[in-house]
Amino acid sequence: MLITPGKILAQINSPADLRKRDRSELLQICQELRQYIIDNVSVYGGHFGASLGVTELSVALHYVFNTPDDQVIWDVGHQAYGHKILTGRRDNFHTNRLYKGISGFPKRKESEYDAFGVGHSSTSISAALGMAVASRYKGENLRQHIAVIGDGSMTAGMAFEAMNHAGDIPNNMIIILNDNCMAIDPNVGALKEYLTDITTSHTYNKVKDEVWTLLGKMSKFGKSAQDIVSKIENGLKATLLKQSNLFESLNLRYFGPIDGHDVEYLVTVLNDLKNIPGPKILHCITTKGKGYALAEKDQTLWHSPGKFDKITGEIKKKVFDTPQPPKYQDVFGNTLVELAEKNPKIMGVTPAMPSGSSMNIMMKAMPDRAFDVGIAEQHAVTFSAGMATQGLTVFCNIYSTFMQRAYDQVIHDVCIQELPVVFCLDRAGYAGADGPTHHGAYDMAFMRCIPNMIVSAPMNEQELRNLMYTASLDEFKELKKSFTIRYPRGEGVMPNWRTPLEKIEIGKGRKIKDGEDVAILTIGHIGNYAVKATENLSEEGLNPAHYDMRFVKPLDEEMLHEIFRNFDKIVTVEDGCLQGGFGSAIAEFMLDHGYSAQVKRLGIPDAIVEHGEQIELHRESGFDVEGIAKAVRKMIGVEKKAFKDGNKSNPLILN
Amino acid sequence: MLITPGKILAQINSPADLRKRDRSELLQICQELRQYIIDNVSVYGGHFGASLGVTELSVALHYVFNTPDDQVIWDVGHQAYGHKILTGRRDNFHTNRLYKGISGFPKRKESEYDAFGVGHSSTSISAALGMAVASRYKGENLRQHIAVIGDGSMTAGMAFEAMNHAGDIPNNMIIILNDNCMAIDPNVGALKEYLTDITTSHTYNKVKDEVWTLLGKMSKFGKSAQDIVSKIENGLKATLLKQSNLFESLNLRYFGPIDGHDVEYLVTVLNDLKNIPGPKILHCITTKGKGYALAEKDQTLWHSPGKFDKITGEIKKKVFDTPQPPKYQDVFGNTLVELAEKNPKIMGVTPAMPSGSSMNIMMKAMPDRAFDVGIAEQHAVTFSAGMATQGLTVFCNIYSTFMQRAYDQVIHDVCIQELPVVFCLDRAGYAGADGPTHHGAYDMAFMRCIPNMIVSAPMNEQELRNLMYTASLDEFKELKKSFTIRYPRGEGVMPNWRTPLEKIEIGKGRKIKDGEDVAILTIGHIGNYAVKATENLSEEGLNPAHYDMRFVKPLDEEMLHEIFRNFDKIVTVEDGCLQGGFGSAIAEFMLDHGYSAQVKRLGIPDAIVEHGEQIELHRESGFDVEGIAKAVRKMIGVEKKAFKDGNKSNPLILN
Repeated sequence: MLITPGKILAQINSPADLRKRDRSELLQICQELRQYIIDNVSVYGGHFGASLGVTELSVALHYVFNTPDDQVIWDVGHQAYGHKILTGRRDNFHTNRLYKGISGFPKRKESEYDAFGVGHSSTSISAALGMAVASRYKGENLRQHIAVIGDGSMTAGMAFEAMNHAGDIPNNMIIILNDNCMAIDPNVGALKEYLTDITTSHTYNKVKDEVWTLLGKMSKFGKSAQDIVSKIENGLKATLLKQSNLFESLNLRYFGPIDGHDVEYLVTVLNDLKNIPGPKILHCITTKGKGYALAEKDQTLWHSPGKFDKITGEIKKKVFDTPQPPKYQDVFGNTLVELAEKNPKIMGVTPAMPSGSSMNIMMKAMPDRAFDVGIAEQHAVTFSAGMATQGLTVFCNIYSTFMQRAYDQVIHDVCIQELPVVFCLDRAGYAGADGPTHHGAYDMAFMRCIPNMIVSAPMNEQELRNLMYTASLDEFKELKKSFTIRYPRGEGVMPNWRTPLEKIEIGKGRKIKDGEDVAILTIGHIGNYAVKATENLSEEGLNPAHYDMRFVKPLDEEMLHEIFRNFDKIVTVEDGCLQGGFGSAIAEFMLDHGYSAQVKRLGIPDAIVEHGEQIELHRESGFDVEGIAKAVRKMIGVEKKAFKDGNKSNPLILN
Repeated sequence: MLITPGKILAQINSPADLRKRDRSELLQICQELRQYIIDNVSVYGGHFGASLGVTELSVALHYVFNTPDDQVIWDVGHQAYGHKILTGRRDNFHTNRLYKGISGFPKRKESEYDAFGVGHSSTSISAALGMAVASRYKGENLRQHIAVIGDGSMTAGMAFEAMNHAGDIPNNMIIILNDNCMAIDPNVGALKEYLTDITTSHTYNKVKDEVWTLLGKMSKFGKSAQDIVSKIENGLKATLLKQSNLFESLNLRYFGPIDGHDVEYLVTVLNDLKNIPGPKILHCITTKGKGYALAEKDQTLWHSPGKFDKITGEIKKKVFDTPQPPKYQDVFGNTLVELAEKNPKIMGVTPAMPSGSSMNIMMKAMPDRAFDVGIAEQHAVTFSAGMATQGLTVFCNIYSTFMQRAYDQVIHDVCIQELPVVFCLDRAGYAGADGPTHHGAYDMAFMRCIPNMIVSAPMNEQELRNLMYTASLDEFKELKKSFTIRYPRGEGVMPNWRTPLEKIEIGKGRKIKDGEDVAILTIGHIGNYAVKATENLSEEGLNPAHYDMRFVKPLDEEMLHEIFRNFDKIVTVEDGCLQGGFGSAIAEFMLDHGYSAQVKRLGIPDAIVEHGEQIELHRESGFDVEGIAKAVRKMIGVEKKAFKDGNKSNPLILN
């Protein structure tokens, strides 16, 4: 079902079309754009609140600026749906986030209007500054560069690094601070309070105006009073103008706050800013979810609600006849509280992902023991390390892809110092619809090369619980190592997941299935594909063995010796990059111990894999059920005999 | 030669001894401590200016606070020599930075007074906050937590992330901002200007005082004027107190600026701060190199001058009879300018390492084309990516170890977007005396797993020049890949290094030497050890082949097919981590192509390798000249016959 756009929106095939419209039509265009987003996302799913919040900004920016020659960079990009619809992708918008469809984020390959690809937060100012400096160097002095960044993204240090530089070199960049007090969850931190302060009564602008007015009144006391007033004014200008604002402190001219939903006023202000030289920041107040009442009310839920009935607001959930396995996220969140209730040393840390990671369960149950530190992965890791020096057991949950932001801190502040911080890497492997910026593809490679680091991945809910339990034990702490537990986004395989907690010996895998000819070695959840594959293969008369290695580091050397003594054909399976990952670790073991075998490594290829359902991407990369079966057959040198399609809604449920 | 400490310093074996001294003796103690640092560093080398700059702070902190129960965290740690001398390491201080000696940085293993190990900048506030939160949770309410951080370190985003969090949760942390306007090179950025502003005349405190005085004078105009004055005052308090200071904006109470060299006043102020609840920042103005005139004058040179004559100030350099090879750093700096002179698209970026990386040569020659962005690796990479989108060829030079800070940006902003940014990773491999926090051990592993990334390492100066030249060509840009060139700290092997620039085909290695039985595969500078090893082995009658692979990615598959067809014994050599590195890539190739061979991988082991001379660490890790020879002998199954010691001052010079 294609969504019909409003009357004017239907005629806007590019920003040039928009710029031909009369200013008086902008309000109508905003309404139609907002409606189009609601109509589409309710049917096809996707991010929601953020784009509704910048509808007016999207229209105003493309109306005022000469895009794509002028370059707009949308930080993170959750909010760029309006931008996409206005820049020639309206009629493709129903393919948003679908396999082979358009991306949910701005992407340079997709459109010349996407000046910079995004996905992770807080890159926009750096990128815009680079573009602005390049334009200046090339003599393209009229080009404008605009970074649109949320208050949540402002908490990441990278944004500060960029402002520190921007305030120090010649450029005319415009930073638009889209202040809605939200990241995915409510924004936290001192900066947020500050921004709220300057938008409410006792603030900069108001006080400044009042003081000026009052000083004016003093003049009536005659010449000598006027002299004093004039001195006071000069002194105040030095502080109030230059220093009374955090952004002015960094030499960025500050404008605002203004109402980010007043499209006509936005147009006026942006037109003014165009002509003001130097780097500047416009503080816009917006409401996430603007225009859809329920989304305004529960902004976290409606950040990315899935499909919903736009009239009733009912979010559509799949209905099942039988009990379904939980999400790994929920197993993490609940198990952490279960452990923390018994062990007072346990603390929790999340960088701005309380709901996504389910750390919010502990934050609610034990508010003094679980911390949302804002979009600040670097700080999250070193803050955790600081707590660990005091003997606490910190579970620091960071999405695999976001851990790339804190790599140095893991090496330096945790592993070199032998601090037993536990890292739970959520959304490891393919992230799905969020695509390449969110895939957790590299973690096994970049974590296993660090000394004093244990790297594990549970194959199911029970293993996740047991790995977490193991990491919470004092005997782990005595190892003076860090403990990484990686697991994917979404459902596991065990509807009855509240299993008793049992210690897993560190570095011990388990044999899932005896067999002959070929040994399949898997790591993590993806091992369930191998279970299915061996079932299918056995119907073809093939009988490969299957081992769930559980640990990428340390490897279960005893088990590997047994495997390499008994098998000369090995298939390794991982939902991580093939370069330097799990299979690579197995290869290293083999060479270091002088074994020789035929080894086929299945995993994420050395390429940028786009978005799609996880299962679609697994298939594309050749490590879904059939991909594994195929590798085994090929190795043995047999053709496929018969194959039962395992592609039901969830073929992996164990019990 | 052991340095004799001054009279009082000789009696201070721990901070407890210091705290017994009368306050009137502190000045004398500072003088003795400063002299002891000068005496030691002039003889044994090491970092210099930073520690001289915080002599008074070091004394005052240990005098006022109950260390080690109160915890002081020295950011980066260059400046912690005074701290080390005061905390029981005076008599070991001559082993500073030597192999098996004490570390040049604070290190938890070394002393209970080293509350947190450091080396990279800007971690102190996060760590101190973690400790403070843990202490609070544990009910240790009297413990103090103090982070000492330079203005240079404040430019890194991580410090901002930590302040944003610190201003938002209950804690009594003290941040001491050690403001000397310097990183290793002069500090840059808007924050630096701001800090200078508030320490010079037209600033916060002064203006505030003046305005208050002037407002007082207005009162003489009678009651109605007094009313207005009172209103103005109330309004101003809201802005001036709450908002007129960047740190107050983040809810950190700001004190200062004060003279960081007035030890008695420091003691008074720190005693006061102890009793003020909430997070707070004390702004201290210090002079890097304080007390040694030459060091105050040329602060970059005297950051880490090497050994010197403390009377004449003459820095001791080795004298050689013959021309010596240049540092790779100088080859980089000069070659970049040489390329940029001919190619107007070339730009340079360094995060705060102009002199260390030799980017200062381009900054001086072409100030509009080379940027020091401050200690801000994340921004450096994405700023480079922004310039690359505009068709510029950016050489972004980052120390290998610091690249760990910008890993996500390399993946997201460069490689996913297919932007041809050139990364020059300086100080790859063992850093030497700086130790584990500075070793560039992991780069080959963490860079080669990224798609669209070329990873190379030159074996000598000529290869560095040619790789840089290759990366500057348009035909490289058309590949839409990023290009990493890693090279070590220090001298190469070619005194006559200004060779003509020649393109190197991407992914092509070169055969250094034909041979039989064993093939030695090397990457980068360390290949020169293999040259020497094969020379030595040939005197023993052994004849291994040697290949300089030049690229970790893409591998020279043609050459590897030839090697694996002709050899069943392979030794790989890399000055990088064995997990997932170069040898691992060779192992992957072997398995993927169904070859079988005995492979011995030499490289950095899976352990934290401490500091020492590079050659000492290479020997310890078994990949120096003799280590390589030994591996070959062992593989062939022969004993050592004879060995000419190659351990002259520089055995590697080629021509």
